[in-house]
Amino acid sequence: MKRIESEQNASIKQWKKLYTRKERDKLGQYIIEGPHLIEEAMNHNVQIAHLIIEESYQMPHDWEQLRLDPWVVSKKIMGILSDTEHPQGVLAICRMSSKELQVKAGGKYLLVDGVQDPGNLGTIIRTADAAGLDGIVLGEGTVDVYNSKVLRSTQGSLFHLPVVKGNLQDWIAACRQEQVPVFVSALKGAESLHDVQSSGTFALVVGNEGSGVRMEIMESADQLVYIPMFGNAESLNVAVAAGIMLYELQKNRK
Amino acid sequence: MKRIESEQNASIKQWKKLYTRKERDKLGQYIIEGPHLIEEAMNHNVQIAHLIIEESYQMPHDWEQLRLDPWVVSKKIMGILSDTEHPQGVLAICRMSSKELQVKAGGKYLLVDGVQDPGNLGTIIRTADAAGLDGIVLGEGTVDVYNSKVLRSTQGSLFHLPVVKGNLQDWIAACRQEQVPVFVSALKGAESLHDVQSSGTFALVVGNEGSGVRMEIMESADQLVYIPMFGNAESLNVAVAAGIMLYELQKNRK
Repeated sequence: MKRIESEQNASIKQWKKLYTRKERDKLGQYIIEGPHLIEEAMNHNVQIAHLIIEESYQMPHDWEQLRLDPWVVSKKIMGILSDTEHPQGVLAICRMSSKELQVKAGGKYLLVDGVQDPGNLGTIIRTADAAGLDGIVLGEGTVDVYNSKVLRSTQGSLFHLPVVKGNLQDWIAACRQEQVPVFVSALKGAESLHDVQSSGTFALVVGNEGSGVRMEIMESADQLVYIPMFGNAESLNVAVAAGIMLYELQKNRK
Repeated sequence: MKRIESEQNASIKQWKKLYTRKERDKLGQYIIEGPHLIEEAMNHNVQIAHLIIEESYQMPHDWEQLRLDPWVVSKKIMGILSDTEHPQGVLAICRMSSKELQVKAGGKYLLVDGVQDPGNLGTIIRTADAAGLDGIVLGEGTVDVYNSKVLRSTQGSLFHLPVVKGNLQDWIAACRQEQVPVFVSALKGAESLHDVQSSGTFALVVGNEGSGVRMEIMESADQLVYIPMFGNAESLNVAVAAGIMLYELQKNRK
């Protein structure tokens, strides 16, 4: 058993820094919290550099065979390391891995243009997973996927499908090449989602919470699509909108 | 112009207390922040007891004709009163009003069973507004609708349709009496949403983030419905699920 007693320990200080994007990118590592998320990571071959548990933490039975050699820390140190109000007693330091994604004919993709809120991005990733997509591309200006709140909101879905960073125009061009129609979520000058004919292969672009999808991306789309507003709301939350659109496009598959 | 100079001012202390449910219920008041939400409140006849602005705040032009007599406070006091990281310079203390809701034949309703996260509840209310529902009932154990984070996430939709507290079993009975079919969101033992026939009148019940809709409520339902999972996600966020279901049930109207 390895134990860290001091808050001043160099590893503690370094791990804590993983809550900043700069440090994550520099070290190629990120931090996840709680047994569910850690189990999802393990099950999907994420490399775990360090496991850190609180002294009173009972590891799940099926982890025992994995011969993990966790760092044991006090409740106080766990509180320092954790990002949540109620720490769950276990953290893991994971290594980033470069994921591969390639547009293929017949595929289903989500392109994210500048979503800022971590909870929204995490929920979008979870939703895209539920809808059975083949991959997600995060465009410039989108919040970092390794942000702890994003990771938490994905509920593990980040590990289920390829999520890559990229230039959206390049990806739209790749979709065009493979005859994957590109739909862009819009409020105006668009066709109602319920009138859209989807052949079950598509790329959907969703945009920033305030300003939506950038104009130049809209101009590259095959079709602008809106969700009809039956009441007095001006718009929907971006994760909710993504869910409604993805399930509609997905459902229409032939 | 009315000005409050001291942080120790009794009104400041009292308003600050409106961030607790107990105090809100005692005083029948709640606090909203930012020009958009305040404008929505004004446009929907919410009684505003006090308007509080930061000294540098420029009121929107169309507010001038309203002859509002705001309290002016320093940036520091606004920071104390505000619940957000980046205060928008204007707050309003609103009076709660008792809203009326009655189940009518042909109507569309959402029943919320124990949703705990304020952001989720606010987003659900916004989504139900967008889907053109006639009213929302918040069952026991659901987070307070006047919680500041709920209010913020509604984006004003709270003021667009009746949102009432109530006993869900009573409301289900009322739906039955008016031939409004009751659908309950479930993961198991349910019919796929895409196979459900909706006549455009319905009550949908959504449940707690972790445990879903309570068993006794499920047993009162006309139909349990699930959203198919095409990927590896175990479930969807409750607000996303509500959005997908409401738009599907709404769309099938004849």
